[in-house]
Amino acid sequence: MTDELILDENRFFDSDPPTRAIARELYEGVKDLPILSPHGHVEPRLFSENKPFPDPTELFLIPDHYLYRMLYSQGIPLEQLGIPKQDGTAVEKDHRKIWRTFADHYYLFAGTPSGVWFNHELYVLFGIREKLTGDSAMRIYDQISEKLALPEYLPRALFEKFNIETLTTTDAAADTLEQHQKIKDSGWKGNVIPCFRPDAVINLMDKNWRQHIAKLSKVSGIDIQSFKSYISALENRRAYFKRMGAVSTDQGIFSPRTHELSANEAETIFQRALQGKADVTDADQFTAHMLMEMARMSIDDGLVMQIHPGAFRNHNQLVFDAFGPDKGSDIPVQTEYTHNLYELLNKYGNDQRLTLVVFTLDESTYARELAPLAGHYPCMKLGAAWWFHDSIEGMQRYRQSVTETAGIYNTVGFTDDTRAFPSIPARHDLSRRIDSNYLAGLVARHIIDRSDAERMSRALAYELAKNTYKL
Amino acid sequence: MTDELILDENRFFDSDPPTRAIARELYEGVKDLPILSPHGHVEPRLFSENKPFPDPTELFLIPDHYLYRMLYSQGIPLEQLGIPKQDGTAVEKDHRKIWRTFADHYYLFAGTPSGVWFNHELYVLFGIREKLTGDSAMRIYDQISEKLALPEYLPRALFEKFNIETLTTTDAAADTLEQHQKIKDSGWKGNVIPCFRPDAVINLMDKNWRQHIAKLSKVSGIDIQSFKSYISALENRRAYFKRMGAVSTDQGIFSPRTHELSANEAETIFQRALQGKADVTDADQFTAHMLMEMARMSIDDGLVMQIHPGAFRNHNQLVFDAFGPDKGSDIPVQTEYTHNLYELLNKYGNDQRLTLVVFTLDESTYARELAPLAGHYPCMKLGAAWWFHDSIEGMQRYRQSVTETAGIYNTVGFTDDTRAFPSIPARHDLSRRIDSNYLAGLVARHIIDRSDAERMSRALAYELAKNTYKL
Amino acid sequence: MTDELILDENRFFDSDPPTRAIARELYEGVKDLPILSPHGHVEPRLFSENKPFPDPTELFLIPDHYLYRMLYSQGIPLEQLGIPKQDGTAVEKDHRKIWRTFADHYYLFAGTPSGVWFNHELYVLFGIREKLTGDSAMRIYDQISEKLALPEYLPRALFEKFNIETLTTTDAAADTLEQHQKIKDSGWKGNVIPCFRPDAVINLMDKNWRQHIAKLSKVSGIDIQSFKSYISALENRRAYFKRMGAVSTDQGIFSPRTHELSANEAETIFQRALQGKADVTDADQFTAHMLMEMARMSIDDGLVMQIHPGAFRNHNQLVFDAFGPDKGSDIPVQTEYTHNLYELLNKYGNDQRLTLVVFTLDESTYARELAPLAGHYPCMKLGAAWWFHDSIEGMQRYRQSVTETAGIYNTVGFTDDTRAFPSIPARHDLSRRIDSNYLAGLVARHIIDRSDAERMSRALAYELAKNTYKL
Repeated sequence: MTDELILDENRFFDSDPPTRAIARELYEGVKDLPILSPHGHVEPRLFSENKPFPDPTELFLIPDHYLYRMLYSQGIPLEQLGIPKQDGTAVEKDHRKIWRTFADHYYLFAGTPSGVWFNHELYVLFGIREKLTGDSAMRIYDQISEKLALPEYLPRALFEKFNIETLTTTDAAADTLEQHQKIKDSGWKGNVIPCFRPDAVINLMDKNWRQHIAKLSKVSGIDIQSFKSYISALENRRAYFKRMGAVSTDQGIFSPRTHELSANEAETIFQRALQGKADVTDADQFTAHMLMEMARMSIDDGLVMQIHPGAFRNHNQLVFDAFGPDKGSDIPVQTEYTHNLYELLNKYGNDQRLTLVVFTLDESTYARELAPLAGHYPCMKLGAAWWFHDSIEGMQRYRQSVTETAGIYNTVGFTDDTRAFPSIPARHDLSRRIDSNYLAGLVARHIIDRSDAERMSRALAYELAKNTYKL
Repeated sequence: MTDELILDENRFFDSDPPTRAIARELYEGVKDLPILSPHGHVEPRLFSENKPFPDPTELFLIPDHYLYRMLYSQGIPLEQLGIPKQDGTAVEKDHRKIWRTFADHYYLFAGTPSGVWFNHELYVLFGIREKLTGDSAMRIYDQISEKLALPEYLPRALFEKFNIETLTTTDAAADTLEQHQKIKDSGWKGNVIPCFRPDAVINLMDKNWRQHIAKLSKVSGIDIQSFKSYISALENRRAYFKRMGAVSTDQGIFSPRTHELSANEAETIFQRALQGKADVTDADQFTAHMLMEMARMSIDDGLVMQIHPGAFRNHNQLVFDAFGPDKGSDIPVQTEYTHNLYELLNKYGNDQRLTLVVFTLDESTYARELAPLAGHYPCMKLGAAWWFHDSIEGMQRYRQSVTETAGIYNTVGFTDDTRAFPSIPARHDLSRRIDSNYLAGLVARHIIDRSDAERMSRALAYELAKNTYKL
Repeated sequence: MTDELILDENRFFDSDPPTRAIARELYEGVKDLPILSPHGHVEPRLFSENKPFPDPTELFLIPDHYLYRMLYSQGIPLEQLGIPKQDGTAVEKDHRKIWRTFADHYYLFAGTPSGVWFNHELYVLFGIREKLTGDSAMRIYDQISEKLALPEYLPRALFEKFNIETLTTTDAAADTLEQHQKIKDSGWKGNVIPCFRPDAVINLMDKNWRQHIAKLSKVSGIDIQSFKSYISALENRRAYFKRMGAVSTDQGIFSPRTHELSANEAETIFQRALQGKADVTDADQFTAHMLMEMARMSIDDGLVMQIHPGAFRNHNQLVFDAFGPDKGSDIPVQTEYTHNLYELLNKYGNDQRLTLVVFTLDESTYARELAPLAGHYPCMKLGAAWWFHDSIEGMQRYRQSVTETAGIYNTVGFTDDTRAFPSIPARHDLSRRIDSNYLAGLVARHIIDRSDAERMSRALAYELAKNTYKL
């Protein structure tokens, strides 16, 4: 029957029998390892409040731009999908109707990672056994809704069921980490830790930069009037994050250019920014300098430094104006690392106290720039296949492009980077399957032997993340 | 016997048995679907005149720069291959001798799509059962020549035999479409439609631009003295093309940069061009502006807009001077889409009346820029793997790079883009086989199921082209 | 037993049985062909002196930045690996201890070509049957040391055992080729020939450029006071190299930009350089001009011209200052060929007396720029997958990206490019296996037939190098 939803136990493994058999065995050896999620965007409030998830539409569709961007690309207005508007004007409120629209167009996701993850969630988490179509839409809606009301579907219960050892959230530099404190205070044992993300106080082009600085002044208790006091406030916050369990920082930047300004130059730009007069050049210079500063601070306090360059944010101004950021119109651009990271790597790259994890949206840099850099500099590790490339083919291209030059030990294991908490097991399962399959291909072609593969398999599924992020 | 020409029924499918078996079944389901050829360079005169094809050399080699460029790269002068010179000086006239030279070097094409297509034509169309070599050259020449004299090898008969539902030609903006009119008048039912290609009247660096404008004035009946009248003339011609059956426009451009000029700026550049004084910067600005204008017009009249950027035309000046354009020395360059399409997509990209089909010669943009753009903007579709990438490996890289982000429904099916009419079935057969094999790989790895694959298979072979081009 | 070192006879072949069977048969047909090594960095002194190799650490590790850069990336100081310092300060001298450190970290190379080559050397050359680990380290050290003392492990004996037909070294323009002369004078029949590499006298940014010019003056007997006498001196040396057996030149350049200066411009820059006043722009212009000059000279004297662009040399200044060049911190950059080679190809590209072999570190140019250029211009051939891309996946990407546009006959066969003499058979064996496997995949998918594959297999393993380099 073609409408049955089946999760084959050999899914994602190559179909030739020798490779598949080895892949399956490697996968069996790692599939039940605890999940480390050292980088993501799950809201800590989920666990501090531990309230039941709302209905399926609110759980799956409305927060996930991976899903609704695809429907938008095929002409479904975002209003019709219930995406809230910035000006508060009406959007579709009938979540059953929205779910039906989603189901009618679910065929669009065939062959995409979103489709694969979503099927996993339906099948494993909710016990659904039919494919999502217009016909099955409401039956599935009701089945999920029923489950969401059960105590074992509360966020903390799922966290434990998912066997998550550590979950890292992403938090603004000026965040009070109040939700994290509440989790700690609650006595619940789930290890949910913050990550220090200073983008809003570093990006001078952010329209609300001065407000973010004001907020940073307030939470740090340091009156930010100069570049020096700004740095002190950041150091203050990093120390606070660290006390709250943080092991890492993260920066989303357009370009990975690194360049140290003189104290004077930095101060001059900073003062212009405080007066609301900084321009694009100032902002670029400031970011380049702050990458240097962040590396210096990481050497001091031991937080792992992560950078995520290369996205042209909010490419679709109309969608941005109507619906705000993160609505599926961030588009990658070509990114250069060899020249751009030169200053940082030359100043700090040989210092073993620094761990710099570099991500990319430009796959052409894997073999050309990133693997050679990570395969030489002691500080540098290559982040997992990210965002659009966190996919079956994307992960395979990553391993095939990176391993021969950098080995696997200069990479950092899997990073799910998700906002969608219930998708975490699906994403780690996919990653473990693809890495098992990659290693199986090496074994089947006698490039490595079986014991190598077993060791590497555990490293990719668990140990590399644990070691890199000092978890 | 090693000189036997064999077309294996499982050709181009992966050799592992599970994938191959599924690929074969998917292929069987689409192999006999009618051919839609919504973009190509076949001469309409072929069908208006319906004369017998000349000899094999003139049929296959002399018009096909895919073939003779390879021989040229190995040191065979183009004169020796009968390629006519611009100055009319003598070139080899003995077509049997040229054929022999071609056959002697045919081994160069092993592993290339030209070799694969050509073998298909020999085998299927002409019933040849031995490989083309120096030894077999003249026997094959004679066999083909014999066939070409038969009525069932006339262009219209082949069109019907090939099961072509629609064939789109490419026609200059100032073309009278006289041949298309003749086809209509003849009462023959073959659906051969024009496509509006305004490159010659848009590219200010074209040495004959003013002559093209004069011609455009004449055919449109609009005296082009200003940018405004120029636009009117183009609108006039688009309307005429549409009445003659056109569903699309096409633009070959160096860069896909889009930028709207003020009315004043556009007029100033246009006047400089009319005086023969436009420079490279003018030309770039003008093209960027005309991409905006073409999108606007497409919203008005519904013609699908196609752009083909990224070729450095006539890279070999010596060959260009001696033999003219399109002689195998167009070389791709790196191409940028995220920034370049920004203005157009922001002004028109959310308008569902627009269909913008974007092609590329720069595969590094598939996963990085084009799939994310096509996977978000309602107007945008990604054109098929094009030119150098219209090949077995090229198509596979395309699907593997694009599908996970954009799905298949933001792509447009296959475009043969050929000048070589007899190669059309070979090219569509190849494409259907490769797509079947791609989908089979997804099924074998349980990424999609069999019913998904069957639906997607029909879409790739037929429906996507039909829907995108409104055929 | 997992610590056993096994070299499977089907290694590196795809695991699906049909492809593997064909790959194996193709490989059997070429595995014993003589080795042509037309480009590499083995010291000629090895063969003029024919002394026993020193201990395993000095043989394998200390000269091979492929190996120690990986250990450095994981935090092992280069001093601890015995890499000599520029200032002569102490580094680890205990070669057994260094070997143990290497062995302890040898697992890092799993899945890398270094690991594959090294295992081949251990197994085939030294008869080792256990994997290199901390546990086996000293046993293996002793076994190798024992062998190295035997006469059949002397360089000349190995040269013959390896079945090397021709080995090309790389030699500075001002080199006296004294070692090559000694080899000739010795009466030994091994064909070791020089290659003319003028980088040191072309790169105006080289701090010792004037000393190199002085040396060039001396060896050529031409007092270099002008650009003209400089060119005469180069021509003089090329003629000398040619008399000494050279068939080629080689240039390592940052950018492949070609541009002819006027005689005046060239002279002006040259005079500034002689006065130590040339700047970066001068240097770039000079290199661009010298590429034109080198092509002109190759047309005159028939030496094959090779260019190797795209490496940012000595990216890690700290490592460079302490340990000198070639220590594993050369990092590739994006490289452009279509525009950059325009002038050279337009002036000399249609001249069949020129053979220009172009290498790249930027794989994104394979299908986009290099294959189309090599598939058109008679002079141009595409060099083998180079350096970081001289690997199993790298070679496969190369063939898959290049063949469909350029065929195999516009490529030049395998180039081992190694400093590590004992690794030569391992590298050629790997290359022959990967090419056999690539061709087997084409046969299994019926893209080519078996007789095509056999012909192409011999071409890739032997004939293309022989023909290109006129050996």
